[in-house]
Amino acid sequence: MENHFTVLQTDPASRARLGCLVTAHGEIETPCFMPVGTQGTVKAMLPRDLLEIGCQILLGNTYHLYLRPGHEAIRDLGGLHRFMAWDRPILTDSGGYQVFSLGAMRKITEEGAQFQSHLDGSSHLLTPEKAVAIQEALGSDIAMTFDECIPADASREYVRTSTARTIRWAERCIAARTRSGQLMFGIVQGGLFEDLRRSCVDALVALSFEGFAVGGLGVGEGEEQLREIGSFTVDLLPTDRPRYLMGVGRPQDIIHAVRAGFDMFDCVIPTRNARNGTLYTWQGKVNIKRAEFANDARSLDENCGCYTCRNFSRAYLRHLYMAGEILSAQLNSLHNLYFYHRLMDKCRETIRGGRTELWTRLWEPREAL
Amino acid sequence: MENHFTVLQTDPASRARLGCLVTAHGEIETPCFMPVGTQGTVKAMLPRDLLEIGCQILLGNTYHLYLRPGHEAIRDLGGLHRFMAWDRPILTDSGGYQVFSLGAMRKITEEGAQFQSHLDGSSHLLTPEKAVAIQEALGSDIAMTFDECIPADASREYVRTSTARTIRWAERCIAARTRSGQLMFGIVQGGLFEDLRRSCVDALVALSFEGFAVGGLGVGEGEEQLREIGSFTVDLLPTDRPRYLMGVGRPQDIIHAVRAGFDMFDCVIPTRNARNGTLYTWQGKVNIKRAEFANDARSLDENCGCYTCRNFSRAYLRHLYMAGEILSAQLNSLHNLYFYHRLMDKCRETIRGGRTELWTRLWEPREAL
Repeated sequence: MENHFTVLQTDPASRARLGCLVTAHGEIETPCFMPVGTQGTVKAMLPRDLLEIGCQILLGNTYHLYLRPGHEAIRDLGGLHRFMAWDRPILTDSGGYQVFSLGAMRKITEEGAQFQSHLDGSSHLLTPEKAVAIQEALGSDIAMTFDECIPADASREYVRTSTARTIRWAERCIAARTRSGQLMFGIVQGGLFEDLRRSCVDALVALSFEGFAVGGLGVGEGEEQLREIGSFTVDLLPTDRPRYLMGVGRPQDIIHAVRAGFDMFDCVIPTRNARNGTLYTWQGKVNIKRAEFANDARSLDENCGCYTCRNFSRAYLRHLYMAGEILSAQLNSLHNLYFYHRLMDKCRETIRGGRTELWTRLWEPREAL
Repeated sequence: MENHFTVLQTDPASRARLGCLVTAHGEIETPCFMPVGTQGTVKAMLPRDLLEIGCQILLGNTYHLYLRPGHEAIRDLGGLHRFMAWDRPILTDSGGYQVFSLGAMRKITEEGAQFQSHLDGSSHLLTPEKAVAIQEALGSDIAMTFDECIPADASREYVRTSTARTIRWAERCIAARTRSGQLMFGIVQGGLFEDLRRSCVDALVALSFEGFAVGGLGVGEGEEQLREIGSFTVDLLPTDRPRYLMGVGRPQDIIHAVRAGFDMFDCVIPTRNARNGTLYTWQGKVNIKRAEFANDARSLDENCGCYTCRNFSRAYLRHLYMAGEILSAQLNSLHNLYFYHRLMDKCRETIRGGRTELWTRLWEPREAL
């Protein structure tokens, strides 16, 4: 099997590595962050603004796009890249995470997951084969296997049964592939149980995946378990394949996970927090709503080169937020995504330069200002 | 008194003229359209996107900025241009239109208008002197006199009394000016009564204004009266001063008013309609919500060169609208403002080229597609 991933350099003081992943829409330098484009758009961001901040790859959501506007409509319109005017790589999730978030509105069987649409209550069956077919119709560069994302408080017995099914679903995903040029990553589940994580990795590695993801973390298990299980699991994965920590996370989580050996990340935090007025700076987190910013003529972060920081004051950003202006979401999202991409730049530079003393100084999760 | 306005050319077949208005932040080619930046932002538009579409001048709202974040805060932050990162010209209204829209929440006396904030119910007195002080604090290039915008159904007696007071207020605005470099336009009221319009013009022309505006139109009087009173009034105004038709309007209204001799326009229609999914094309108006667009791969308008039309399909624009995505407001606003600016380009080209046969073919208000 052809390998699309190359490890270019490893950090002598940690398990961090610098890599290059080749996809149908171009190369991705890793470690990298993927902004989330749930409904065919990264909220409040023009594609050209994503290019400007150095975005290499987006994440698209199978569940949302399947329900609206429909994967067949997108296929007939030329695929997701053309639909959203993004010609760099796209990774699509499998819909598993969203379906299992529906709680009472879904039912799991060996066949797949029966669920009701959050939009209109209509009934749908998502199976491994369907998840692959949808992602092939969307035409993403990287498809994910259909899995059950297990809650952090699930019992060992539940996790064992669910993970075994997730492995059988992964085999069905492999068997369902019809499209060349689209990579597929297997998703490791296993909850907070090391032996179940290990047996899941063993089963998935035996299949022909171009990369591996660790799922079921960042779902309420707490920082310590996230880090322990994440580090434990990533160490079991092949070193010559990209390793993606799904849905994580905060800057400090990403830095930790890069040092543990993860290569890819996605999270709604930068964009969702932006819309809620929580902004990231190199001095820490900032709540732009605070009254003390009402007359503050300084840029949000004088060390930031983004469009927002180059042009606007804290007072203006606070005003836009308080006035409920759309421009608030635009400027804040631009800034937070710029910050996340520079954070990934710094991770790569730290590995490239062997500057291991920098890791602990990259960012600290304090309240700034 | 120095004249900041030059008529460069006149249309032989109408009263339309091509002009140049010099302000502290640069020259404006007229006829021109001013996007409305109510709360210190043109909704959903980055300043750089406004520059890209060729925007020459913005309108800012005294009422809104006075209440939030406050004109003194903006002054202390370096003025409205710096606050919103816009270094081209800005015209500010006087707050009159918004205050008088408050209905039961305001009371008019000779001194000014007492009103309650729509934000918190707090009580405020806006006078001619205060309106000038606020606009000077904001630092706009063009300030407007404080006037009462009279409803279309007002009685002759009400209009007579109100217009006489508006003239006295205009005199007080002139007397209150302290800032050089800021132009001031007088606002003609007089309702739908030609003699009252005429006497208002006579009184205002005797004062030293750098330009004149016609107010109290586009407030429910209907298309015919808008055109009749507008044409009647603009003909009374000095030809060597810029003439601004406030709050108007639809493309067909603007074309008509340009031919009648107006030079400047503002309206929320392009941005508000954009957020409601009503888009302007060279073939007419389009409701992007319509089901027939769900699978339409064509750009909204193949004759449009805007970012939206160059990159996205009707199907995508419909999807964003249906999904309630912020990007819908962004792309639609970009398009509609681009359309309005090209409409003004075409008006100027028609005058410049003496192509009077083009006037009736510039745009027709039909439903397109």
